[in-house]
Amino acid sequence: MASLLSSTTRDDALASLPEWQLVEGRDAIFRSFHFANFIAAFGFMTEVALTAEKMDHHPEWFNVYKRVDVTLSTHDAGGLTQLDIKLARLIGATAAKH
Amino acid sequence: MASLLSSTTRDDALASLPEWQLVEGRDAIFRSFHFANFIAAFGFMTEVALTAEKMDHHPEWFNVYKRVDVTLSTHDAGGLTQLDIKLARLIGATAAKH
Repeated sequence: MASLLSSTTRDDALASLPEWQLVEGRDAIFRSFHFANFIAAFGFMTEVALTAEKMDHHPEWFNVYKRVDVTLSTHDAGGLTQLDIKLARLIGATAAKH
Repeated sequence: MASLLSSTTRDDALASLPEWQLVEGRDAIFRSFHFANFIAAFGFMTEVALTAEKMDHHPEWFNVYKRVDVTLSTHDAGGLTQLDIKLARLIGATAAKH
């Protein structure tokens, strides 16, 4: 099972993901994405879904039309782990293509 | 553009969709779906996405692992229209297959 990030690893990881914000009141990160339309937004979600399933680590996400709000945290560990950092990077790279 | 439902049409439509709840504080309906796993949940979302895009009427939805929370309302009209009722029925039928 993934374990919570140490303080230093966590600080470095978050500094390398400036587009992601810490969520108030829980150990999670959040980023909102805006696309050209629903097809682009759901295309992005589909690509992320395949990646997430392969990693066996899934986002919490909300979609309305061309907006997708993504929250990442590792439920089993009760907070941010390396899985969230890895998934955040993959999600950012995926969004850049859509 | 779709127009808001009349009081009688609305009452009849909502009575025919007992699994959907009215949302507190806005003219929208809500239903939470639970599937076997993420593949089933996202498979459901993908099928709904294709239907929604074809209707040009899209849900607001939140997914975490095997749960999908769906809210329907017609933004342009400021509340429930026939599009929401139609989409709610299609979503219910889609969920029943997953």
